Amino acid sequence: MPLEKREMQLLDENELSLNLIEAQYFLKNTRDQNNAKSVLVLVNGIELAGKGESVKQLREWVDPRYLRVKADPPMMLDQKQTFWQPYASSIPAEGQIMVMFGNWYSDLLVTALHVSKPLTETVFDAYIQDMRAFEQDLKNNHVDVIKVWFDLSWKSLQKRLDNMDPSEVHWHKLHGLDWRNKKQYDNVQKLRQRFTDDWTVIECEDEKARDQQFAQTILAALEYCPEHLSQNKEKWKQAVIPEALLHPENQPASDEDYKKELKKLSLKVAEALRLDDREAIIVFEGMDAAGKGGAIKRIVKNLDPREYDIHTIAAPEKYELRHPYLWRFWNKLQTDEDITIFDRSWYGRVLVERVEGFASQVEWQRAYDEINRFEKDLVNSQTVVIKLWLAISKDEQAARFKAREDTPHKRFKITDDDWRNREKWDEYLNAAADMFERTSTAYAPWYIIANNDKNTARLEVLRAILKQLRAE
Amino acid sequence: MPLEKREMQLLDENELSLNLIEAQYFLKNTRDQNNAKSVLVLVNGIELAGKGESVKQLREWVDPRYLRVKADPPMMLDQKQTFWQPYASSIPAEGQIMVMFGNWYSDLLVTALHVSKPLTETVFDAYIQDMRAFEQDLKNNHVDVIKVWFDLSWKSLQKRLDNMDPSEVHWHKLHGLDWRNKKQYDNVQKLRQRFTDDWTVIECEDEKARDQQFAQTILAALEYCPEHLSQNKEKWKQAVIPEALLHPENQPASDEDYKKELKKLSLKVAEALRLDDREAIIVFEGMDAAGKGGAIKRIVKNLDPREYDIHTIAAPEKYELRHPYLWRFWNKLQTDEDITIFDRSWYGRVLVERVEGFASQVEWQRAYDEINRFEKDLVNSQTVVIKLWLAISKDEQAARFKAREDTPHKRFKITDDDWRNREKWDEYLNAAADMFERTSTAYAPWYIIANNDKNTARLEVLRAILKQLRAE
Repeated sequence: MPLEKREMQLLDENELSLNLIEAQYFLKNTRDQNNAKSVLVLVNGIELAGKGESVKQLREWVDPRYLRVKADPPMMLDQKQTFWQPYASSIPAEGQIMVMFGNWYSDLLVTALHVSKPLTETVFDAYIQDMRAFEQDLKNNHVDVIKVWFDLSWKSLQKRLDNMDPSEVHWHKLHGLDWRNKKQYDNVQKLRQRFTDDWTVIECEDEKARDQQFAQTILAALEYCPEHLSQNKEKWKQAVIPEALLHPENQPASDEDYKKELKKLSLKVAEALRLDDREAIIVFEGMDAAGKGGAIKRIVKNLDPREYDIHTIAAPEKYELRHPYLWRFWNKLQTDEDITIFDRSWYGRVLVERVEGFASQVEWQRAYDEINRFEKDLVNSQTVVIKLWLAISKDEQAARFKAREDTPHKRFKITDDDWRNREKWDEYLNAAADMFERTSTAYAPWYIIANNDKNTARLEVLRAILKQLRAE
Repeated sequence: MPLEKREMQLLDENELSLNLIEAQYFLKNTRDQNNAKSVLVLVNGIELAGKGESVKQLREWVDPRYLRVKADPPMMLDQKQTFWQPYASSIPAEGQIMVMFGNWYSDLLVTALHVSKPLTETVFDAYIQDMRAFEQDLKNNHVDVIKVWFDLSWKSLQKRLDNMDPSEVHWHKLHGLDWRNKKQYDNVQKLRQRFTDDWTVIECEDEKARDQQFAQTILAALEYCPEHLSQNKEKWKQAVIPEALLHPENQPASDEDYKKELKKLSLKVAEALRLDDREAIIVFEGMDAAGKGGAIKRIVKNLDPREYDIHTIAAPEKYELRHPYLWRFWNKLQTDEDITIFDRSWYGRVLVERVEGFASQVEWQRAYDEINRFEKDLVNSQTVVIKLWLAISKDEQAARFKAREDTPHKRFKITDDDWRNREKWDEYLNAAADMFERTSTAYAPWYIIANNDKNTARLEVLRAILKQLRAE
């Protein structure tokens, strides 16, 4: 809806306000429906163009209780953090509207304008490409992203600076830029033109027209809530199940060899994790009883409990379902911990959610690319992503279930669900095969570890971690 | 369970581990049951006594996936933040165990040892008293708080410092203290003895005994999950309903006077809020259609949307119910916003939750004191808490409901629930009466605003805010 390209009509303010409030409640009521969405409004622009005023006016026209506003001061883009990480927790839930003044574009501009060594055009454009891909993923996951640039000519800007009330300076931080400097102004314009072609650009000479154009842009976004697609037209090409999954037999190690090797390897892993400057994310997937818990124990054996975090992923909570499905994982990566272990992970989307029908066909089929982009962003932010699939045979699983039922301190680990999931063994194998084919990337490959013999597998897990830590 | 006072028996490690795992799963399964609780373990002590090692050993004995560990570096207590604010979001949910290395006691010790002007004993003891009250509130709300002090004699500490491997220094930050300084060691001991009489104090000369005593302390805590009380023995003394609630008639203002006065007052409120160094929390309560939304609009009229935040409080989410009921409000106060407006609030506990039976008798009757302590902590941390009750008569409410149903852009505001709540009008009046009597404190009084005439009421709201901002 590039509103700036059609002639904008000034609407009666009462009518506009009425329409906005109706649209707000309409959006609110989409929650948990098949046309649910949220609206994220990114607001940027030339200083003194009046983005604050337009949002203020909008908040007067709407019900202000259902329009959240977030204003973070712009931050330099950080080598150790993806561009979306500072904002992930504020992505609005279905039914909500969020206006973000500080966002990844303000960070990009500030970085481009302030670093001692300016970003090259290639790097700048690569950021824009990543940001657009992220926004597309948001849109596919029911977060509509509306981007509005408040523009102002050099002449008008200078006039507004002349007329500025000194008491107002507090509210215009001016982005730490010298807006009296024509060269700097031109530089901002040059940079922003590299990304604003899919934005609504508002000329801010006239305040009334500006506020109306902004409000009408938001109104159009609120009113547009099409039903979600669930079926893909293209036929799905099922991947071939890897041999390693069908035959997870491995050589048992002697008890003595195992103990010696385990001690050596787990010390080596702890040391390698500590020496590595990157953050480490270790992901475990596999059938029930595949030995994830036992493998995790051996990894952390020589780590201090303050060095790592373990997330055991269960079904999402209701409030998490009102966000993009990766959202709960974004938020789990916000900590300072250097080592994060996931006992099950975002791959649930293409495993349990696919097999059990919790995700629609469109959703799980799209998820492979989304996951790849997510992991790539992490890897580009100095994170190493280590993905481990523990493979067992169906017979071995049955034996372990039985053993669990017979062992007092393991009885808790087994439920009726576990036996039920087992009935879908082949569907899970197919889902795993597709997952390996589509998400085993150069920057984050899968390691399939045969685990019919637990001890040997535990050593293999440690070796895989060492390999991936050194591989890059 | 002051375990240190009875003779500690060394248990067989396998048996201890088995018991711990069983107790962990038992705790996990209390979730959503009538004996649900979580366990928060605060860990402090003399450097090198081995608290890290003991937690590490514990995490080897238990299922490490269900024992979270958090380690924040100690921070100086902050005048602008309550002592619990940095930790509120990490309070474990029912069924969970969390070990906190950095906690309010480490912050208190660091503050006492590092400020240029040392804390007086009175101030130090006042902090301890507030911390204990907070912990008691946690316990009443199903978060068991276990405090463990790892102690070490001066002699042993010196010996361990002598033997310390230089490569380990990294993991022992030593709290920035000089542990070779006897005077400083004695000072830590003197200070900690002012608060550790309700702690488990572990003598850490022997490592095996230390780890066992710690694990056994945790085991005892995990196993102790009594059913929650729901009935109070004492008879409840219902407060008299204030006249202002029974007769919310007020003088209508002329349109012209209203507009003039509104403009003046709302500018004054915006200025007062901005000039005030404290954070401001403005709480609105009142029957449905009492005019909360309209009053909020007039408060924010002259504020920039980036200066304030509005929270509209609905029923808690399921995951929020697994925490102390104030928890979701603690987390809403973590932002940098200087002005926070609550459209309904924590008072839901003693209003809707009481009337509808969502809170047990014990819970809502205890809540008045909990809320008072919560608000006192805020006020002591340079926050002004402004509480406004908008009062309307039952007839006026009926008229407004009708009007809403007849007005297109207000139709969304009215639901069947609203008509249903109306049937309990008298019960809500009683609940409000008790609330005023018990929570209108000197530091955070209630303002009851008669609201049969909306315009006059809106002016009164603005005047009340001005009054409370200047009152302190």
